[in-house]
Amino acid sequence: MARTVAHKLIGDHLAWGEAVPGEEIGIAVDQTLTQDATGTLVMQELEALGLDRAATQRSVQYVDHNLLQADEKNAEDHTFLHSGCRRYGLWYSKAGNGVSHPTHMQRFGIPGATMVGSDSHTCAAGSLGMLAIGVGGLEVAMAIAGRPLRLRMPRIWGVYLDGELPDWSSAKDVILEMLRRHGVSGGVNRIIEYHGPGVETLTAMDRHVIANMGAELGATTTVFPSDGAVRAFLRSQGREDDFRELAADEGAEYDDHEHIDLSGIEPLIAAPSSPGNVVPVREVAGREVSQVVIGSSANPGHRDFAVAAEMLRGRQTDSSVSFDVNPSSRQTLSDLTKAGAVLDLINAGARIHQAGCLGCIGIGQAPAVGRNSLRTFPRNFPGRSGTKEDSVWLCSPETAAASALTGAITDPRDLAAELGMEYPRPEQPDPATVNPAMFVPPLPPEEAREQELVKGPNISALPDLPELPDRIEAPVLLKTGDNVSTDEISPAGARALPFRSNIPELARFTFTQIDPDYPQRAAEIADTTGHIIVGGENYGQGSSREHAAITPRYLGLHAVIAKSYARIHWQNLANFGVLALEFADPADHDRISAGDVLVLDGLRDALASGGPLTAVGRDSGERYELRHNLSPHQVDAVLAGGEIPLMRRELS
Amino acid sequence: MARTVAHKLIGDHLAWGEAVPGEEIGIAVDQTLTQDATGTLVMQELEALGLDRAATQRSVQYVDHNLLQADEKNAEDHTFLHSGCRRYGLWYSKAGNGVSHPTHMQRFGIPGATMVGSDSHTCAAGSLGMLAIGVGGLEVAMAIAGRPLRLRMPRIWGVYLDGELPDWSSAKDVILEMLRRHGVSGGVNRIIEYHGPGVETLTAMDRHVIANMGAELGATTTVFPSDGAVRAFLRSQGREDDFRELAADEGAEYDDHEHIDLSGIEPLIAAPSSPGNVVPVREVAGREVSQVVIGSSANPGHRDFAVAAEMLRGRQTDSSVSFDVNPSSRQTLSDLTKAGAVLDLINAGARIHQAGCLGCIGIGQAPAVGRNSLRTFPRNFPGRSGTKEDSVWLCSPETAAASALTGAITDPRDLAAELGMEYPRPEQPDPATVNPAMFVPPLPPEEAREQELVKGPNISALPDLPELPDRIEAPVLLKTGDNVSTDEISPAGARALPFRSNIPELARFTFTQIDPDYPQRAAEIADTTGHIIVGGENYGQGSSREHAAITPRYLGLHAVIAKSYARIHWQNLANFGVLALEFADPADHDRISAGDVLVLDGLRDALASGGPLTAVGRDSGERYELRHNLSPHQVDAVLAGGEIPLMRRELS
Repeated sequence: MARTVAHKLIGDHLAWGEAVPGEEIGIAVDQTLTQDATGTLVMQELEALGLDRAATQRSVQYVDHNLLQADEKNAEDHTFLHSGCRRYGLWYSKAGNGVSHPTHMQRFGIPGATMVGSDSHTCAAGSLGMLAIGVGGLEVAMAIAGRPLRLRMPRIWGVYLDGELPDWSSAKDVILEMLRRHGVSGGVNRIIEYHGPGVETLTAMDRHVIANMGAELGATTTVFPSDGAVRAFLRSQGREDDFRELAADEGAEYDDHEHIDLSGIEPLIAAPSSPGNVVPVREVAGREVSQVVIGSSANPGHRDFAVAAEMLRGRQTDSSVSFDVNPSSRQTLSDLTKAGAVLDLINAGARIHQAGCLGCIGIGQAPAVGRNSLRTFPRNFPGRSGTKEDSVWLCSPETAAASALTGAITDPRDLAAELGMEYPRPEQPDPATVNPAMFVPPLPPEEAREQELVKGPNISALPDLPELPDRIEAPVLLKTGDNVSTDEISPAGARALPFRSNIPELARFTFTQIDPDYPQRAAEIADTTGHIIVGGENYGQGSSREHAAITPRYLGLHAVIAKSYARIHWQNLANFGVLALEFADPADHDRISAGDVLVLDGLRDALASGGPLTAVGRDSGERYELRHNLSPHQVDAVLAGGEIPLMRRELS
Repeated sequence: MARTVAHKLIGDHLAWGEAVPGEEIGIAVDQTLTQDATGTLVMQELEALGLDRAATQRSVQYVDHNLLQADEKNAEDHTFLHSGCRRYGLWYSKAGNGVSHPTHMQRFGIPGATMVGSDSHTCAAGSLGMLAIGVGGLEVAMAIAGRPLRLRMPRIWGVYLDGELPDWSSAKDVILEMLRRHGVSGGVNRIIEYHGPGVETLTAMDRHVIANMGAELGATTTVFPSDGAVRAFLRSQGREDDFRELAADEGAEYDDHEHIDLSGIEPLIAAPSSPGNVVPVREVAGREVSQVVIGSSANPGHRDFAVAAEMLRGRQTDSSVSFDVNPSSRQTLSDLTKAGAVLDLINAGARIHQAGCLGCIGIGQAPAVGRNSLRTFPRNFPGRSGTKEDSVWLCSPETAAASALTGAITDPRDLAAELGMEYPRPEQPDPATVNPAMFVPPLPPEEAREQELVKGPNISALPDLPELPDRIEAPVLLKTGDNVSTDEISPAGARALPFRSNIPELARFTFTQIDPDYPQRAAEIADTTGHIIVGGENYGQGSSREHAAITPRYLGLHAVIAKSYARIHWQNLANFGVLALEFADPADHDRISAGDVLVLDGLRDALASGGPLTAVGRDSGERYELRHNLSPHQVDAVLAGGEIPLMRRELS
């Protein structure tokens, strides 16, 4: 049978099950990626699992989030992670080496391989023809331990590209066009596979931009074929030997279909405060801008910085604009420095920061309240910038640079016409700088077994989580609307992120963006009734952080009842023993109010037997029919209180 | 009469008084410098004073401290400062343009001019033959308003330099040698004037290193002659027209004397946690290092980075070391990029940060507890790094780079011998990059008067401060040892600094490094008895922040009784109406305990008439004879509750 790229990748790694949409399958995992904000928990999980040594072909721990070091906690996390890498046979990418996604692509990405990562943008590796899926930390820990990834087989969404991008539009505008058409849940339960003649007009790094922000569509992942552009990229990295061609067979069938004529793409921008609020730049042109930031895994390529540098060469950014540049990796910074682009950026007024995620995850660079900040980032969820009432826009480097020059939102075509500016076509560095010295390789096994984990005082143990009770009688402590992000559940940013290794402390931040009193109210009843949360559509979109499941669970959350879930968060809830239920009738969402006490009785039997699930209003007597989408394995995990107690039970 | 450089500078600017040690003099002020962490208060003071327009030749507001932007507060401070500059006719140096001291030297420093700055390292401008004095923000505000600086005439300390520095020793080792000999209060009430044939072997930027850390000796300031090296520096900056020769007259007499043979200087290092704990590097060689940072106003020159870059070229920093590079100014970063030094640093594993103070003021880069961090910074007071139990060492770029390579404290001579490394002699950029575009010039007066101050919600009004009471009957809430720094009184760092514009919030951090309960205990009695603090020698050393006077005052501090004071803090206490008293017999310090209630009665008369001052233990009946060193003007200010109420009274 003619197969798509996605089917080939899955077929070549299928550990069990049948690759039919909706069926649970197991996928063998070749590589893993963790970053520091989720990775400390992964190390704690590896310890809890009693792992001896990573069973993957390659597992890499990056340090790209907690880079500010406002106090000792970040540095202690780095030390802990380094010791964990030494103990378990992982690669350690030092702070300053760069953002995991582009850095991994440059050094370790291999067409045809599978990867899971405890970062929602892991899917960026689809640019090389990998099957790369963002998951919770616990699933990465299990993959490191050699277990296949459990997944419900998604639908394959073929997006046919033809034509060629016009000047002043670039890959970012392509993915913004996808978001304009389909919104932040358009990709749910889908693997997006780009195909058609337009694909070959995009470099591997352009594809990274598009694959990266597939996460914003809610997609399971994105795949591109591995072709000449991938070969050229790997050759520039000194790794042509890692190349393997991978293309959809002639006549391969997709489950769903979309078509984009690249020649019709114009500069687009996502308005505050959702990646789905996409409009043409010209529609919002002229609004004052106080900050412009380029960088992040959503625009990490040499060209993304070099195009901006060329536009700014010999010019000066507006006096009211803070122009921040976040190099995506040390290697890219080297290449940009060699090419003179760094000098152009500095001379134009750039604040050049260390290589890392930085402002993209609210680690510094917070804008003033209500003032427009344009960023080449993937996300602009409310408050993610570190500023509560922020006004963050997402755009291409072309639009960002044009707006930095004028101090107002500017379509780069209009600025180019005004200044007579040619569209920059910077040369790709070939060969690129290759300097793996900031990757510390794994220790040999004998040495590794001697290594102690170095735990600073801020690194807590994982909390013990009890079994799911048979009867829940608990108040709805919070009722949310649609598209609540994990940033709103467990905020990132410079205040909260340093506590990512310390669940009790981190729990104090849970849901505070929506309800500052939630942590206290939840804690007060955590040991008695516990509580329930009611959510809308696409509950838990965004970052992969499993902290968004663990911290409310730690505060007594038994169950979420929502209209629908974002995939990674839904899995994280099951992993940590929170029951993720859905309304049989979504209209029931309106019939429940915050404060209602709901009763769910005979839960364990109902879950184990697949029997009907009903919540009853204790005071109103109202009934709400519920269902779940958990696999038998996930049901076992939820009943046991989560994957860790389940696995401990299996081992004992 | 033959005059020293210091006497010429003072004589040319004497507004009143006689330049005799100990006499109060007035000095006309040509330039002012403010940075953001102290500058927001200066703007609030200008507003309180009702200023129309700066009366100085040049006043420049830098943004170099609060650069992390962990939330909206930093960005709002920047907006406020920019609006203040527009309103009052100041230059605004944007965030990312660099550290005030080297940046000011490069663009605005003029031999023979006077300057005050609300930053203790303002004295660095002595490198160009300026009389530049770090003072409290209120004194800068008054200087901006055209008032001469009030000062007790210091003694002039002639330091005769001869010989020439050997390879692998540099200017930083010269000032560390001064600190080794004289400690952190060796320069109190002195202007250090370097002279002799050794001076001409030092570049202007070398002199900056030495003048800068005169602050660590407690000196009022440091001056160098303005000679061929200064002319060469100004020429490289495109400002040869600003050159003016300035030298001590033949036979000029100094009040005090010291002699350093430069050829005998070896690599030195200040051990934790005082700049005065200086030992030869070889004495502590071999200790493990987890972090190395180069940059700051104490080693801001092109050569300071370029020497390190050359040592690291083609090599890799140790895998256990975080190697952080803080460019001192955008201009220096440009020159280093052009020279290839930035590329060398990146390739060796550097985390290149934006231009600014950063780790030097605890804005990021905090090390892990107890792990050695080597820095080319001026200060290593306990906790200043952002880590409470830190272990910070101060050294030259040569020692820092050598230690980054080996992962252990290393004398660069020993590493050079091992590797056969030549001593780097990088070329100075000549001409240097000159790009003033990140300095926003003042508005014309008519436009300026239209400008509103833009105050975000975190910018509080200055608190109203009442008059000094005639009778104080109050407990000693805190008793400290010697050399308490303003970092310990009002901490900097990423947690506290964002509140520098918000006295009530900032007050919650006061003295918490010494006594976490102090703010609460003080606040409880602020409106009833208030309180007293007893200190040792050199009370209030370090940074110029007037917050260290305002926040305890806000919490009810009436008087400090100490053995001796650091100059700037002593002046700040008077400026904000806190009575700074000294023990007539320093041994009395031992006779008072924390918790004792002291009674000072008839204070207003005693101060006004110069009568005897006695504190009596309320319960013990013990008597403590006290004195003060306040000028008549300062007595008026203290009686009025501070300079602002005094000036308001004068104006009404």
